[in-house]
Amino acid sequence: MVSNRIVECIPNFSEGRRQEVVEAIVTTIRAVEGVKLLDYSSDPSYNRSVVTFAGPAEAVKEAAFRATEKAAELINMEEHQGAHPRIGATDVIPLVPIRGLSMEECVTLAEELARDIAEKLGIPTYLYEKAARRPERQNLAHIRQGDYEGLKAEITRPERQPDYGPSRLHPTAGATVVGARTPLIAYNVNLATTDLALAKKIANRIREVRGGLTAVRAIGVENKEKHTTQVSINLTDHTKTSLYQLFERVKAEAQALGTAVTGSEVIGLLPLEALVGLARDYLGLTDFEQGRILEARLFGE
Amino acid sequence: MVSNRIVECIPNFSEGRRQEVVEAIVTTIRAVEGVKLLDYSSDPSYNRSVVTFAGPAEAVKEAAFRATEKAAELINMEEHQGAHPRIGATDVIPLVPIRGLSMEECVTLAEELARDIAEKLGIPTYLYEKAARRPERQNLAHIRQGDYEGLKAEITRPERQPDYGPSRLHPTAGATVVGARTPLIAYNVNLATTDLALAKKIANRIREVRGGLTAVRAIGVENKEKHTTQVSINLTDHTKTSLYQLFERVKAEAQALGTAVTGSEVIGLLPLEALVGLARDYLGLTDFEQGRILEARLFGE
Repeated sequence: MVSNRIVECIPNFSEGRRQEVVEAIVTTIRAVEGVKLLDYSSDPSYNRSVVTFAGPAEAVKEAAFRATEKAAELINMEEHQGAHPRIGATDVIPLVPIRGLSMEECVTLAEELARDIAEKLGIPTYLYEKAARRPERQNLAHIRQGDYEGLKAEITRPERQPDYGPSRLHPTAGATVVGARTPLIAYNVNLATTDLALAKKIANRIREVRGGLTAVRAIGVENKEKHTTQVSINLTDHTKTSLYQLFERVKAEAQALGTAVTGSEVIGLLPLEALVGLARDYLGLTDFEQGRILEARLFGE
Repeated sequence: MVSNRIVECIPNFSEGRRQEVVEAIVTTIRAVEGVKLLDYSSDPSYNRSVVTFAGPAEAVKEAAFRATEKAAELINMEEHQGAHPRIGATDVIPLVPIRGLSMEECVTLAEELARDIAEKLGIPTYLYEKAARRPERQNLAHIRQGDYEGLKAEITRPERQPDYGPSRLHPTAGATVVGARTPLIAYNVNLATTDLALAKKIANRIREVRGGLTAVRAIGVENKEKHTTQVSINLTDHTKTSLYQLFERVKAEAQALGTAVTGSEVIGLLPLEALVGLARDYLGLTDFEQGRILEARLFGE
């Protein structure tokens, strides 16, 4: 049957213009047995592509390694230009535990991958988020400071030493950041107002940094297409704040400000556990977990 | 990968006392490749066992056939006694479309299974629920009128002719009912009252037969263990009434009667689609379907 240890991987590659390069990278991922390609998209102005795939832990590690190898072969950071921060051909590889493994085990997987990339490909690697070995490296932006060009000059400094591999950038592929993190849910709540100030006010009230909800990042945005405003949210850990708690809070804040919620939308993919948590909280269910879903029982064991 | 056409099967066998017989039947089901045994339990006073399994349509049909064959070999209806209505060793075989096939296709599967049982095992079969060919046979109770003993005398009457097979009972296995139906969700809502009359009143207000919610059967019951009362619900079609609509309605009725809902519980397994429907309705999601769940994408295609 299907492996029990399922990991999602969302590598970012510094190529968003030459489609044949992106296809070549994606092809190496597809070629690994057990791995399932879920999505990939390129941004020409960022000159960057994001690939989403998932599968058994070992297969995912193998696919991420091969894709990094292919990107090192086809992308030259010396010639790369793009609007998005980046330090390498394979810029960042987040690993997300989906089922059957703990965050700790996913960190171990990230360490193994980072070590393989450093030792076998000669690309220095940094560990970030839950895999970080220095507190400041939990933050990806900190590791990417100065971009490829800046890191090239500073990598020999003690505070910029990679976690694995040489203290010099790979001549074409630069450096790569590898880590483990909780699944991020991109979620927008639609408001019954065109007043952007109200949307921003609600966003401010629910953001973790402003004392709102744990694991919630939010901004108020206009949705011109739909002639409305939205609270655009990144929920970085749905086990800390469930979709139920989040939605109820936005509804309450909207009401307090004299407006209302008209609906919401999930962007991209939602982990099943987030749906289970929503049902548990909303319905006040006791003893409810993934194993109670027929399909999870069918495919998960 | 995994087949796209997934069916759940919940056959009822007229044996709930001789555990070795139940195990022998369950073993034939387990032996079919691709089929997953989800649950089985026996009731000695009913002298009846219910088995739940699921898998690709063809494998499920094969497993149901083999189990029926084994039950015919080991159970003698001439000697059977039990408190539950029954007409055969394998009394009833409901098939439930879970994923990748329509109710119509599931009806076809039920017809094929019923024909195989009749032609290869000489057991007369009746089609019920969505597979029924006569309106009155949508109702299982109608087909089982008079039990094994009564049907034995009446099977030659035109109105009791089986849909497949001979107009006489199998000498030991009796007759079998085969059909297709929507997944049934067993769901209890807990009330903040010990007053059983209130629970019964709420149940009456939400029942379809009393003009309440479509596809909802409900009774008020005491939960002595928890010192509370419950509305005990069978939701026979969650696409007609979602868990969200059901829970909101029970909350509203409870409030109108001066009590409140304290939580709820799902009994047994929940189809993923019911969870998706709940999220869609509660969060006011547009464009949300199973394919947006990471695990469904991983295992479902």
